[in-house]
Amino acid sequence: MAPVPEIEGAVQAARAGYAEVVLVGPQDLLDRELAARDARSLKIEVVHASEAVTMEDKAAKAFRRKRDSSIRVAARLVRDGKVDGLISAGNTGAVMTTAKILLGTLEGVDRPALAQVFPSSKRGKATVLLDVGANVDCKAIHLEQFAVMGEIYCRKILGVAKPRVGLLSNGSEPHKGNELTREALARLNNAPLNFVGNVEGRDLFNGRVDVIVADGFIGNVALKISEGLVDAVSALLKEALSSSVSSKVGYVLSRKAFRGFKKRLDYSEYGGAPLLGVRGACIICHGGSNANAVKNAIRVAAEFSEGRVNEKIERELALASLSKN
Amino acid sequence: MAPVPEIEGAVQAARAGYAEVVLVGPQDLLDRELAARDARSLKIEVVHASEAVTMEDKAAKAFRRKRDSSIRVAARLVRDGKVDGLISAGNTGAVMTTAKILLGTLEGVDRPALAQVFPSSKRGKATVLLDVGANVDCKAIHLEQFAVMGEIYCRKILGVAKPRVGLLSNGSEPHKGNELTREALARLNNAPLNFVGNVEGRDLFNGRVDVIVADGFIGNVALKISEGLVDAVSALLKEALSSSVSSKVGYVLSRKAFRGFKKRLDYSEYGGAPLLGVRGACIICHGGSNANAVKNAIRVAAEFSEGRVNEKIERELALASLSKN
Repeated sequence: MAPVPEIEGAVQAARAGYAEVVLVGPQDLLDRELAARDARSLKIEVVHASEAVTMEDKAAKAFRRKRDSSIRVAARLVRDGKVDGLISAGNTGAVMTTAKILLGTLEGVDRPALAQVFPSSKRGKATVLLDVGANVDCKAIHLEQFAVMGEIYCRKILGVAKPRVGLLSNGSEPHKGNELTREALARLNNAPLNFVGNVEGRDLFNGRVDVIVADGFIGNVALKISEGLVDAVSALLKEALSSSVSSKVGYVLSRKAFRGFKKRLDYSEYGGAPLLGVRGACIICHGGSNANAVKNAIRVAAEFSEGRVNEKIERELALASLSKN
Repeated sequence: MAPVPEIEGAVQAARAGYAEVVLVGPQDLLDRELAARDARSLKIEVVHASEAVTMEDKAAKAFRRKRDSSIRVAARLVRDGKVDGLISAGNTGAVMTTAKILLGTLEGVDRPALAQVFPSSKRGKATVLLDVGANVDCKAIHLEQFAVMGEIYCRKILGVAKPRVGLLSNGSEPHKGNELTREALARLNNAPLNFVGNVEGRDLFNGRVDVIVADGFIGNVALKISEGLVDAVSALLKEALSSSVSSKVGYVLSRKAFRGFKKRLDYSEYGGAPLLGVRGACIICHGGSNANAVKNAIRVAAEFSEGRVNEKIERELALASLSKN
């Protein structure tokens, strides 16, 4: 089966001039799909990969066994400097494992972190949460590195001049937190960041801060709670709005407003989750991504590379480390 | 200023015959308010307390300094067996501290836990999450005790015959989790419960399980993310629906459906969060609770006491402990 959102997204991104795109996968299939889309004049190249990692594959096993998987071939292209970054809407664990091993980490980074952009109720404001799942057990120094990486991403990709950074905790007062966050709070208070201290779960959606730092266990729970609640709210609304004739008519009249509302909640507008801290750009899209999400992920990968985000991360981490000695 | 939701809630609960209510606070004020509500024939007694803990007070300090606070007077009434339980919509930290110290914990309980009922997208299904904030750093044995307490609460108060219990983790597979949850998973697999293993954040709202166990740090973050997201969604919807004439008309036509929708999301229908594991019933309502929430909390406290929830918790914990030796 053809990976339609990926192909469509690549075509749209190439048409928009975001980047020169290399599609990695079964050569025959991809050539045929591109031809069917009249995309031969676009800057899209195909590199063959004979295997595919499935959503059911275990990350470490897939890495060892499927040496010619599209994820691994793409990562080799990045490692060898043939492309600047990779995008995948495949198995998140496998992409992270492959990227960490083949690309390696930046100078000063102990653990790469997965960042997710959340929409907020304040127009034009979004909040970056990291780590949303790359590192389950973290130390305070890792959270500090996540803060530096997230701040630069927010500045360079989301265009926020002086991002406000917060630490996810069970209350905003400085005495709140668990063992890990209390130690991280002390570190972050001394870091060269616009750090506002502890923030709460509700601050993920109200635009109070631009970057929120958490360990990958909490970050992942936070992400999935948000996704689950949005699904539940949608289902409940739909049920409520189909319960009577007048509410059905009401729904038809307000349909455009609902579409705008859903678009504001749609993470795909932000173009996937960057794995920060590896060499090269690595953007991981949700398994159910549409062409628009893939197109935006390609745009973000290009901006990531052109904005020299990784160089800035290495420089800031060196400064942060110097300021401690 | 009179605590109107508490007084109204007490009057409604007494009218409904849920319980005999004792209101604790400034005698003059409460007598006057009850007289104004024509409530003299109802089973409502007033016990005087000269002080009040504010939302700004620190829990431990309030406990030491305000020896005649309404929270403390109410807890003494429970301790001395004059009432079966207490309800407060005040400072959560102060209520928990006061209840833990004055009431003491049940046999077999190391740490009381705060439980919150979440609505789900499946009609008639709700999910109890605990701990949502009483214990920031937990051990695996505490999570096991939370599971036993939550299961009994779900059975006796929510009326679920054989509650399904899950452990909040970053994935549903058994190898997922952090140090704490991996250890807790092993314990829970051997506990005399209908335990389904790891669950994800999204399972808080889809009715897959009836009880979800987490440490109080994660549980609190989960609760506040949910509250924050519901607020953000409401604000976004309101904005979208007031953006054009047709969507405004649509909103008016579908208003009744929206009210039903909001009611399903309204935690107050479930009557506050029980602090499980202390002697007596202790139900903590949200600071912004309305009379309906207080009334339902009184109903729940009465059911808690009549259902002998605490006796059952002590018995089950003794059994769970026996089965290990």
